[in-house]
Amino acid sequence: MAEERIRVDAQKLRKLAALELQAVGVPEQDSEVMADVLVTADLRGVETHGIVSLVAFYINGIQEGRINPKPEIKITETGAATATIDGGHGLGYAVTYRAMNKAIELAGKAGAGFVTVKNSTHYGPGFYYPMMALEHDMIGIALTNSPVPEVVPPGSTKIAVGTNPLSVAAPSNKQYPFVLDMATAVVAAGKFRKAILEEKPIPEGWAIDKNGKPITDPNQRKPDNGGILPLGGKPELGVFKGFGLGVMIDIFTAILTGSAPAIFQKEKGTCHFVGAFNIGNFIPVDTFKNRMDEMIEAYNVLPKLPGVKDIYIAGGYEAKVQAEREANGIPLLKKVIDTLQETAEKLGVEYSLV
Amino acid sequence: MAEERIRVDAQKLRKLAALELQAVGVPEQDSEVMADVLVTADLRGVETHGIVSLVAFYINGIQEGRINPKPEIKITETGAATATIDGGHGLGYAVTYRAMNKAIELAGKAGAGFVTVKNSTHYGPGFYYPMMALEHDMIGIALTNSPVPEVVPPGSTKIAVGTNPLSVAAPSNKQYPFVLDMATAVVAAGKFRKAILEEKPIPEGWAIDKNGKPITDPNQRKPDNGGILPLGGKPELGVFKGFGLGVMIDIFTAILTGSAPAIFQKEKGTCHFVGAFNIGNFIPVDTFKNRMDEMIEAYNVLPKLPGVKDIYIAGGYEAKVQAEREANGIPLLKKVIDTLQETAEKLGVEYSLV
Repeated sequence: MAEERIRVDAQKLRKLAALELQAVGVPEQDSEVMADVLVTADLRGVETHGIVSLVAFYINGIQEGRINPKPEIKITETGAATATIDGGHGLGYAVTYRAMNKAIELAGKAGAGFVTVKNSTHYGPGFYYPMMALEHDMIGIALTNSPVPEVVPPGSTKIAVGTNPLSVAAPSNKQYPFVLDMATAVVAAGKFRKAILEEKPIPEGWAIDKNGKPITDPNQRKPDNGGILPLGGKPELGVFKGFGLGVMIDIFTAILTGSAPAIFQKEKGTCHFVGAFNIGNFIPVDTFKNRMDEMIEAYNVLPKLPGVKDIYIAGGYEAKVQAEREANGIPLLKKVIDTLQETAEKLGVEYSLV
Repeated sequence: MAEERIRVDAQKLRKLAALELQAVGVPEQDSEVMADVLVTADLRGVETHGIVSLVAFYINGIQEGRINPKPEIKITETGAATATIDGGHGLGYAVTYRAMNKAIELAGKAGAGFVTVKNSTHYGPGFYYPMMALEHDMIGIALTNSPVPEVVPPGSTKIAVGTNPLSVAAPSNKQYPFVLDMATAVVAAGKFRKAILEEKPIPEGWAIDKNGKPITDPNQRKPDNGGILPLGGKPELGVFKGFGLGVMIDIFTAILTGSAPAIFQKEKGTCHFVGAFNIGNFIPVDTFKNRMDEMIEAYNVLPKLPGVKDIYIAGGYEAKVQAEREANGIPLLKKVIDTLQETAEKLGVEYSLV
């Protein structure tokens, strides 16, 4: 099923995405933020959260009224280190970009800053927001709920919690930054969609059916037939840890904003929790960044199992992919390019990627 | 191998532990803190981190000069939301108790507070410190490094990172509080010691040997023969997530304090990172706590797999154990009681548990 891919320049892709968003009413600055988030995901090889979702999720979401392109975003400072945001059902990208900037501003003054966001929508690839803290010599964190339950708690086979991802970034000096971006389930839901598309079975340990038996046919995972397992998978291999992390994120996002966790039937919405820690409040920044370099280098000189070329900490592989794609372009599926160009034409946007 | 257990009153156990610590030079207030931490672990069924380690780890550690019973503890406020502590190689319990109180004080004013601790020693059961935040209507967090590497990164079979636990607590109203306390490895090292004592094999997925093959005989895990696997265990089941969490904790503890992560050969020490978030800065406290109650109740009415009686979020099972043991005493192994009483006699402490 090898499909044709064409290398596309990242800057051109940003431009087209921004123009299309502007054409459906997104203000210029927000359109540029969102375009950069999506293209950065593709640059880093996180294709599931890249430009592929622009039309299906966001352009359509705006045109069908689910997403408000020009929301009233209310930011309320509530303490030296805290603020809350009502996202007005706008694009999660634009709302969370503001939230992270507010957290960075608070951390610049108080040493740490945290912002909760309610009435938002999907914010895409979680790594982008904590990475905004890096150039400020801060550690960044972003948590988001997934308001639709897809994960079964240990002891049940009924979906009750979201895949609730956790993202953290910390700067280095000459090396790549640490960038952890992980679902708290064994896998994110996108992996099932990918397996269905590729007509491949899934490994035992990703999901169970309504009787608690492992699912290996990805089509068998349905809202009324079991669900994804929390990270750890089984009691003896740590499933209570993955479940605990998932619930923790519902607490920091849904409950701390007054929305409702995924297990509830009502009042649910997409909510986020972002924060920044100013490294200089704890230790000289150079000491921190140089230690990060040394740690990254120490991992990569460990003895390696046969076939292993590099040992990266989180973010290392993605940084390598990003460097290559910034130089040579992003290898997009031809059908993704076609969708983008067809949408441009429909929206009256004149811009060609290739 | 059923061994005799005797029920011991928690308050009596606190008293004896405090007296023994005072006898080796620990100030009264610190001795009471440490006694309460250890006994609370036993009350909550976390026996590996309870009173069993008082003599072997701490009384002996003080008598052999590894732990300073009367350290000079320096607290430096560095921002409205931040402080750093030099623990002076004192008892991790007493140092972290002060750190958490400082974080709570900062959060009371700024909305959030974070304190790093260097030159500390083992702080025992991680859940205790975030739980200190509960009565202040705050969410608490505590991270600690394990300076001795015991966990292998994916791609290698050489131990490089600690089991680095993460602990978070959040209050409810009428229900039990959320208390997550987890190693970022599949299991903590104590589970191997327990299996050796009980002469039982360990499940495949806990550890690998130097060739990458699963270890099922707990005696085969040695510093030069592989190590514990990060949570997730295998690439297709999320091992990069567990490894990422472990490294994240080295960053927040060892690197953010200017100490060194476990992979380094030198400058290593035990370091912590604790924090508190004041719920009232984000949402009315009652709304938060009532939502926590509703969430806990919603989990427990989910359909259950055969043999499952209750579905708890993190901390629920421990709260149930605690209620029973507070009423009926802690079932301690007779040999643990004997060791405590023999040590009392050696130290000139006159106090009988039973």
